[in-house]
Amino acid sequence: MAIIRKKTGHFLEDFRVGQVFRHKGGKTVNEGLFNSFTEFNMTTNPLSKNREYARLCGFDDIVVPPGLVMLVVFSQTVEDISENARANLEYIDMRFGAPVYPGDTLEAETTILGVKPSSKDNDRGVLHVSTVGRKQDGSVVIAYERKVQVWKDDVEAPVESATLEDKPTVDCAPVLPPYESRRDYAAKAHLANSDTYFEDFTVGDVYEHSRGRMVTDEHIALTAQLDNTSQVHCNQHMIDQNPAKYIGGRLIIFGGIPFNLCLGISCPDIADNSLGDVVYTTGRHVGPLFAGDTVFATTEITATEDYADRDDLGLLSVTLRGHKFRKPKDGEEGPQKVDIFVLERTLAVKRRSHWA
Amino acid sequence: MAIIRKKTGHFLEDFRVGQVFRHKGGKTVNEGLFNSFTEFNMTTNPLSKNREYARLCGFDDIVVPPGLVMLVVFSQTVEDISENARANLEYIDMRFGAPVYPGDTLEAETTILGVKPSSKDNDRGVLHVSTVGRKQDGSVVIAYERKVQVWKDDVEAPVESATLEDKPTVDCAPVLPPYESRRDYAAKAHLANSDTYFEDFTVGDVYEHSRGRMVTDEHIALTAQLDNTSQVHCNQHMIDQNPAKYIGGRLIIFGGIPFNLCLGISCPDIADNSLGDVVYTTGRHVGPLFAGDTVFATTEITATEDYADRDDLGLLSVTLRGHKFRKPKDGEEGPQKVDIFVLERTLAVKRRSHWA
Amino acid sequence: MAIIRKKTGHFLEDFRVGQVFRHKGGKTVNEGLFNSFTEFNMTTNPLSKNREYARLCGFDDIVVPPGLVMLVVFSQTVEDISENARANLEYIDMRFGAPVYPGDTLEAETTILGVKPSSKDNDRGVLHVSTVGRKQDGSVVIAYERKVQVWKDDVEAPVESATLEDKPTVDCAPVLPPYESRRDYAAKAHLANSDTYFEDFTVGDVYEHSRGRMVTDEHIALTAQLDNTSQVHCNQHMIDQNPAKYIGGRLIIFGGIPFNLCLGISCPDIADNSLGDVVYTTGRHVGPLFAGDTVFATTEITATEDYADRDDLGLLSVTLRGHKFRKPKDGEEGPQKVDIFVLERTLAVKRRSHWA
Repeated sequence: MAIIRKKTGHFLEDFRVGQVFRHKGGKTVNEGLFNSFTEFNMTTNPLSKNREYARLCGFDDIVVPPGLVMLVVFSQTVEDISENARANLEYIDMRFGAPVYPGDTLEAETTILGVKPSSKDNDRGVLHVSTVGRKQDGSVVIAYERKVQVWKDDVEAPVESATLEDKPTVDCAPVLPPYESRRDYAAKAHLANSDTYFEDFTVGDVYEHSRGRMVTDEHIALTAQLDNTSQVHCNQHMIDQNPAKYIGGRLIIFGGIPFNLCLGISCPDIADNSLGDVVYTTGRHVGPLFAGDTVFATTEITATEDYADRDDLGLLSVTLRGHKFRKPKDGEEGPQKVDIFVLERTLAVKRRSHWA
Repeated sequence: MAIIRKKTGHFLEDFRVGQVFRHKGGKTVNEGLFNSFTEFNMTTNPLSKNREYARLCGFDDIVVPPGLVMLVVFSQTVEDISENARANLEYIDMRFGAPVYPGDTLEAETTILGVKPSSKDNDRGVLHVSTVGRKQDGSVVIAYERKVQVWKDDVEAPVESATLEDKPTVDCAPVLPPYESRRDYAAKAHLANSDTYFEDFTVGDVYEHSRGRMVTDEHIALTAQLDNTSQVHCNQHMIDQNPAKYIGGRLIIFGGIPFNLCLGISCPDIADNSLGDVVYTTGRHVGPLFAGDTVFATTEITATEDYADRDDLGLLSVTLRGHKFRKPKDGEEGPQKVDIFVLERTLAVKRRSHWA
Repeated sequence: MAIIRKKTGHFLEDFRVGQVFRHKGGKTVNEGLFNSFTEFNMTTNPLSKNREYARLCGFDDIVVPPGLVMLVVFSQTVEDISENARANLEYIDMRFGAPVYPGDTLEAETTILGVKPSSKDNDRGVLHVSTVGRKQDGSVVIAYERKVQVWKDDVEAPVESATLEDKPTVDCAPVLPPYESRRDYAAKAHLANSDTYFEDFTVGDVYEHSRGRMVTDEHIALTAQLDNTSQVHCNQHMIDQNPAKYIGGRLIIFGGIPFNLCLGISCPDIADNSLGDVVYTTGRHVGPLFAGDTVFATTEITATEDYADRDDLGLLSVTLRGHKFRKPKDGEEGPQKVDIFVLERTLAVKRRSHWA
């Protein structure tokens, strides 16, 4: 007879460059999950609201928004890669591929690109990984790199300090429906905001999105729906035993939640006429979020470019920033703005000339 | 470079009688939304619980209950019509048409019937509108009028004071499955409350529905799931900056939530054997609801009539009233009942003679 | 004109042995309900996560986990059997049958096996019942007995004290997909924890499952989604009027919630390679759960046996225990462990020899 208490997840010393993890679970994106997240994040692009509109635009069905594709794939990697993480440092070159529809099943795989022990603290280090998400037909739906600071289990354990020489290349580019001049796109154009075509954006403009959304302790259930297994989001007893160890001494909200919410809050101004997200070149969580905080966002237009071989689309590059407010300290006047999230994002946006 | 902060919604001076708004988004009623609301509102009519029962009764699938059809259509109108409203005054002549099933997509359109600036306060006025909701095959699922008090953006702006001369007529009557004597309806009659056939109701009787249901801050997510964009339901930071401006100084619960909950709470006594709601002649929110309040309801039977050309059905007219309790003030004994909602409602109810 | 306030549910004096209740409602398990519960309970078995995996294992679709089958059927019985219960005493011989998939409709029927008034308290007694749940094709999906302590409505009313002589036999055994050696099960074996095959379990071992999960007031919505009509889970006003009457003076969490959560928390260690639950020989709620409590679980391996005619499976019997912690009282050091749930459980578990 034995008492067995399994350690879940891996620690810094467990990783080797070149190692490949085929993650557990996989996930069929059902209509319950689709509803919870599409609605939670306040997306307004009708591609993710209205099946008839999505079909008119050439998709097979209503479209799972990029933020939810990201969450479903990312969450599958948590147990293997970051259940014992101290901090998620950066999303890098997150590219989107085939469209995802309700009913699709997503599985994920991660390759270790680099392991680097901290030169300052011998209990941690940085992991650099590459993750690919595929759906049931094998097509790639998302690919990205990520840097994450991971704890060591045994501070004395040796840690490999290495970088993978031949980074695997992953083919992942947006699969967008073709523009067909015979289709009457204009018939449903009124369903999206009319001032969000490619022609409407000017480099340098900053949009202060007008809506905010409080996140309640609903975040616990949302995070569980994603199969994110990290205990810092749901185990109140663990926090209560040692609040000083945890940021804010409270359950911290999974970063994927404000990530998605910022995408949604910015949608009516930026992405209502987007046909799909192309790439998030970099993204970082720069401040923690807790139940009761209200999330706001701004978007700065950083570049506009032609979309190769698609006269009907343009590439819109932006910086999406999320913020909240905290109570004033002594001497401060009024609530103080706190940045929580920043994302460099490129979208494929319809041109009014073709779609309206 | 510019800072852009879009105003969302319209103000009183923006409206003209005869103007038609084809609202944004549209919405595919998926199983996630269906589950959230059908269950939240405690509906007990098996038409919305049990696909086999719904099919035996002649429907194509499990039925989206009238309260959810109303919420999905109504919410689509919020941004254009009432995002800048002070108060929702009245629902008028809300009629139901074709049945709605999970998977159907609903879109909405509103015509401005009247604009009337307040004679007392120069910052507001009353808007009178007519809304129609259709599903993907073009059939009308709901049509109603509504009066709402809307803010002006610029108190000096001129406001049209007018009433539309030729109100558009909207064809909208319940599409109910025919009664077919060869079907064995009795085989599943036990699934609904047996004392809720048309023969069971007596004019003047008042049902005090025995169940109550507390609404928590779940209302934020429920409202988001409906795409209702009003900030007073979800932007806690906005409220905190100026609590005196907002009723109760708190996030107020979207009226559609208690509207639905009252329908659900009354269902086991009133609507378990209803084949569909026919019309809500008038409805008003008469008190605010906040997270933590427990909702109760009563129903008074006001009329019973034959249903034209349907021996198997009767028309049941009722007054549905919702209430909550508030803490006693000095000198009051015990919690005080506060009315929150009243609805004049007519249902098509099965006759025991045919269906049991 | 009359004021009508219907009593819901039955009281001890209303029951007779041999009586059969065909319960109201029935329920189509849609993807919204499936998502809410599969995710809430933290199940990790890919049969309930990943449609492709479930199909490879021989099922027709993604599998509704046993805990949710139990909840859907059990909840249908609440109004007739236990809406006026004081305490749920015991689940007995709960056996699982045909697999349930999203879209299936479950209906339930209960036979009264015994009625026994309390010899000590004349206001209550014990009811012993047998419940069967079937899906739309008539196949049995679950069958179980249950003992529940029920209030009398009128303490003076005579109560039958009897036991049914000929207990009805219910045919209910797991319908599991056959093992087919030509299938490449190994191709997706990495989706489940690799140390949870039948060969991995040793009688006497105790697993302390590492994850915990706080339950918030989300329990109200979860319970409503199951159509559990008991007011002690959702009517805060009722509790506030007479807190002393209710355990803890608060809304108590429906026992089915921790039941499911304990199954889920134990899943990665115990049931990741289970093909189905066979029987819960006995189960009891031994402590109340309230919003804010964090649930933990342990599993003790009690027996391992061959599975008749199935070389590829083994029968794993375990004791699943759930616990929480309460604040220390004077003189106690640190939070005190409180047991909340115990279940004797037998699962059909894949053998590595065949499936990996």
